[in-house]
Amino acid sequence: MARKDLIDIASLHPEEIEFLLDQSKSFKKLFTHSVKRIPALEGKSVLMLFYEASTRTHSSFEVAAKRLSAEVTNFDVAHSSISKGESVRETIETLQAMRTDYIVIRHSHPGLPGMIARQTTASVINAGDGAHEHPTQALLDAFTIREKFPDPRGKKVLIIGDILHSRVARSTSTLLQKLGIEVAYLGPGSLVPKFGPATIPRFTDYEAAMAWGPDVVYLLRVQMERQDVQFFPSLREYHRVYGITSARLAEISDQGLYIMHPGPVNRGVELCDAVMDYERSLITNQVENGISVRMAVLDWLKPGGDFPRQESYVARPRTTSTVLMP
Amino acid sequence: MARKDLIDIASLHPEEIEFLLDQSKSFKKLFTHSVKRIPALEGKSVLMLFYEASTRTHSSFEVAAKRLSAEVTNFDVAHSSISKGESVRETIETLQAMRTDYIVIRHSHPGLPGMIARQTTASVINAGDGAHEHPTQALLDAFTIREKFPDPRGKKVLIIGDILHSRVARSTSTLLQKLGIEVAYLGPGSLVPKFGPATIPRFTDYEAAMAWGPDVVYLLRVQMERQDVQFFPSLREYHRVYGITSARLAEISDQGLYIMHPGPVNRGVELCDAVMDYERSLITNQVENGISVRMAVLDWLKPGGDFPRQESYVARPRTTSTVLMP
Amino acid sequence: MARKDLIDIASLHPEEIEFLLDQSKSFKKLFTHSVKRIPALEGKSVLMLFYEASTRTHSSFEVAAKRLSAEVTNFDVAHSSISKGESVRETIETLQAMRTDYIVIRHSHPGLPGMIARQTTASVINAGDGAHEHPTQALLDAFTIREKFPDPRGKKVLIIGDILHSRVARSTSTLLQKLGIEVAYLGPGSLVPKFGPATIPRFTDYEAAMAWGPDVVYLLRVQMERQDVQFFPSLREYHRVYGITSARLAEISDQGLYIMHPGPVNRGVELCDAVMDYERSLITNQVENGISVRMAVLDWLKPGGDFPRQESYVARPRTTSTVLMP
Repeated sequence: MARKDLIDIASLHPEEIEFLLDQSKSFKKLFTHSVKRIPALEGKSVLMLFYEASTRTHSSFEVAAKRLSAEVTNFDVAHSSISKGESVRETIETLQAMRTDYIVIRHSHPGLPGMIARQTTASVINAGDGAHEHPTQALLDAFTIREKFPDPRGKKVLIIGDILHSRVARSTSTLLQKLGIEVAYLGPGSLVPKFGPATIPRFTDYEAAMAWGPDVVYLLRVQMERQDVQFFPSLREYHRVYGITSARLAEISDQGLYIMHPGPVNRGVELCDAVMDYERSLITNQVENGISVRMAVLDWLKPGGDFPRQESYVARPRTTSTVLMP
Repeated sequence: MARKDLIDIASLHPEEIEFLLDQSKSFKKLFTHSVKRIPALEGKSVLMLFYEASTRTHSSFEVAAKRLSAEVTNFDVAHSSISKGESVRETIETLQAMRTDYIVIRHSHPGLPGMIARQTTASVINAGDGAHEHPTQALLDAFTIREKFPDPRGKKVLIIGDILHSRVARSTSTLLQKLGIEVAYLGPGSLVPKFGPATIPRFTDYEAAMAWGPDVVYLLRVQMERQDVQFFPSLREYHRVYGITSARLAEISDQGLYIMHPGPVNRGVELCDAVMDYERSLITNQVENGISVRMAVLDWLKPGGDFPRQESYVARPRTTSTVLMP
Repeated sequence: MARKDLIDIASLHPEEIEFLLDQSKSFKKLFTHSVKRIPALEGKSVLMLFYEASTRTHSSFEVAAKRLSAEVTNFDVAHSSISKGESVRETIETLQAMRTDYIVIRHSHPGLPGMIARQTTASVINAGDGAHEHPTQALLDAFTIREKFPDPRGKKVLIIGDILHSRVARSTSTLLQKLGIEVAYLGPGSLVPKFGPATIPRFTDYEAAMAWGPDVVYLLRVQMERQDVQFFPSLREYHRVYGITSARLAEISDQGLYIMHPGPVNRGVELCDAVMDYERSLITNQVENGISVRMAVLDWLKPGGDFPRQESYVARPRTTSTVLMP
C-alpha cells in the first residue's frame, strides 16, 4: 500500500511511520559518511510553492530534494500574478500541465494541500497549512526524540504555548501519541483546546505541568503577529509566565530534561539566551534531522516506485468550487 | 541559415516556424514517454532577466532549460541595484562578461531585447517586451491550435480584448496569419487598432464577431492596472459585454468552438467559472505546450549548433545612446 | 598550510595570493576554451546568505559555484523570519545543522563573517561585510591589473571616492600593496582616512593626484544613500570635482591610463558616458575575472582538499554574546 501524497499525520498507519523513521535514519547515516548526493530522484522535478515565507522549511526541502538529485524549481508566488486573485485551482492546473512530479506547498488556508492533491497527479507534500498540519515537522520531532529514546513508549512530552493555533502542536502531538508517547499541553487557558483526546492533560500553570514529570519540554514559537501574546502585557511577561527562564533552565538541567523548539526561536521570549548552550537542547538536532526526514518523505512518494500508487487524481473534476487567494 | 536570437515573430521565415513547431512536437513526445531530462544543453548557461514579474513564463522557461540540462541562474533584477538607475547597456556588458550562453529577458520597454541582442554574443530570447512582442507565446498558441487542426489553413481565430496594448495579440496574430489562419479582432473601438493588415476584420460587437464564424475564441487577459477597463463602469460590465458568460459558453459549446487564453485568467471577467470544466478549453494545453515549445527554441538557438550562426554582435559598439531603467 | 575560510585580505600570505591568482588564470583559460563545467566541487553544497542585495557579486559566486559542479541554495534572508530578529548565531547553528560545505555571506555588520567562521565547520567566504572587507573584489582587481602588467611592482593605482566607508578601497589597496603596487587616495578630506599606512599618499585635489602619475584610475561607486555626496550640492557637482568628465577622459586617454570601477557605475556621476567606449576601461574585464577568481577561491577552500585544514570551529561555544539582526 503506497501513497501519492503526505497531507497529514492523522491518516498515517503505524507501519508507514516506522518505515519513514527507519528510512530517515538510513539517509542520515549516508550523510554522516559524507555521501552528499544520491541519484534516487534523478530526472524528477519538484516545484516549491510557498505562499507563506519560511526560510528553514523551504531550504530544508530544497536541500533534501537536491541531495536526491531532483530538479528543484521555486514557483515564486509571493511576487507573482498568482497572489493577485488567481484561483488555486487554476494554479494547480498550471502545475499539472507542467507535469511536475512533486509539489511542496505551504499556504495559510487549512485543507488546501489536500484539495490540491486530489486535483493533480503530482505528489503533494504539505509543508504547513494554516493551523491544520505540518507533517514533516512532526516526523522530524519524532525522529529526534527516538534518537534519544530508542524505545519512546511511555515517555512524556510537554508542549508549551499557543496550542490552539499551532499546526506543529497538532501534527507533533498526534504523531507522538501514535508512537506511544504521552503528551501534555501548557498554555493560557484560552489558547489550549478544551476538547480533544481525553488522554491529553492540559495545564495553565508551569509548576503544575512540570510536576506531571515530562522527559522533554517542547516550546512552540510565539507568533508575534498573532493573538498568542495579547493576553500578556508584554513579551517579558510571557517569558516570565511560560518561558524557560534562567531559573527554570537550572531546574530542567538538574532533572536532565531535553528541550525542543521548531525554530526560529524568539530569544528572551520562549527561551532565555543560556538555552543556546544547554547540552540537552535538541534544537539544532531538529534542524539537522529535518533534511534526512524530508529525503525519506520525498523518496517514499517517488512516482513509479516499488509500490502501486494510490491515485487520487480525477481528470477534469466537475466541481465549480473556487478558493480564491487572499 | 541559423539565428542567434528570438526577438519577434515578424522576421521568422515559414520554414523556421515549421521547424520549431515540429521540434516542439518531438520534445513533447519525449515528455509523454516520461523522459524528463536530455543532455542537449549540458554545460550551457541561461540567465533569466525578468524586469517584470511573470511566474508562468519564468517557470516555463526555467523548467524547459533544466530539462535540456542547462544551468539556470536567476539574475534577481527586481531586488537589485540594477533597478536603481543602472543602464541596460551596462547590465548587458556585465552579462556578456559572465559569458552566459542565453539571456531570457522580459522588460516593459518595447524593442529592448532586440537592442540587447545586437550588443552581446549570447542568444537573446524575448520573453515579452512591453506592448511589442511575445514570440514564445505565439509559438505555443500556434502549436496548440495545430494539435487540434493538423492543417490549420483557412481556420478562423477570434481574438477578444485590448488588442491595441497586447503583445500576445500582436505576436500570435502575426504567426497565425503566417500559417494561413484567418484572424479577427473584437474589443472596444478605442482598443482595437484601426490600421494594420487589411485582411484582419475588426469587430466591436460580440454577436457580429461570432457571426464571422470563428473556430477558436481567444480571450486576452484584462490588465487590471491598465486602461482596458476604463471604458467600463465595472469588471462585471466588461464580462457582460466582452466576456464568455454562461449563456455564451452554452452557444460556444453547441458550435463546438475551442477557447484559449494566455493565462492567468481573471475569473468572472474574461471567462465565467464554468469554462474551467469546458471540454474544448485549451488553456491548460497552452501551459503544457509552453514547455515543449521553449525547449525547441532554446535547442534551436544552441551556440555552436549545426547551423552557421547569424552573428549580430558588434564588438564595443560606439553608440552613446543609453536606455535608463525606469 | 591550508585555510578553511576567506574573511579578509590582511591575513593572506604572499604565497597564498600568488597561488590564488595563478589558479584564477587557469580557471579563466578553461573558460576561454569553452569548458563551462568541471567536477571539482561535485557533491559539495554552497549556501548563499545575502543580507544585503547584490546582484553582481551574488550571481558571480553562484555561476562560479555551478561551474565547479557545486549545489547552490539561496537562503532567502531578505524575505525570511531571519530578518525579524533571529540572532545570527541561531541562523548559523541552523546552517551548521544542515551540514553545508560553504557559506557565502554578505552582511552590513563588520566582522560578522569572521565570527561565523569560528562557529561553523563550513568554509565561510566574506562577500562584503559593512565597511570592513570585500576580499574577492580585491583579488579580482589584482588579477585584472596583473593581466595588463604581468610584473606590477612599482605601478601606481589612484583610488577615487569615499575611501573612509569603502570595503573595496580597504581590501583592494591592502592587496595591491602586498603585490608591490603603489596606492594613493583622492577624495573629499572628510572621506579620506587621515591615518593608516604612511606609504599611502592622500589627495583632495584631482589635478594634484594626477600629477602623482597613476597607471590606473580606480573609481569607487558613490553610495547614493550614504554620506558620500552630502558635501556636494548635487551629483553633477560631484562629477565636476571627482568624476571622470569628458575633458578628463581625453587627458587619461592621451596618457594611456587604465580605468577601473567595481560596478555598478552611476553614469554621469563617477564616469561620463563616453567611458563605456574607452578602450582602456577594464570594467567588464573585472566582471569577467570575478567568476574565475571566485572559482579559484571556492576550489582552494575545498573541504577535504590536499592541504590539512586549519579548523577554527569550537563545538558549542560557551559564549552568550548575541548579535541581533538590525
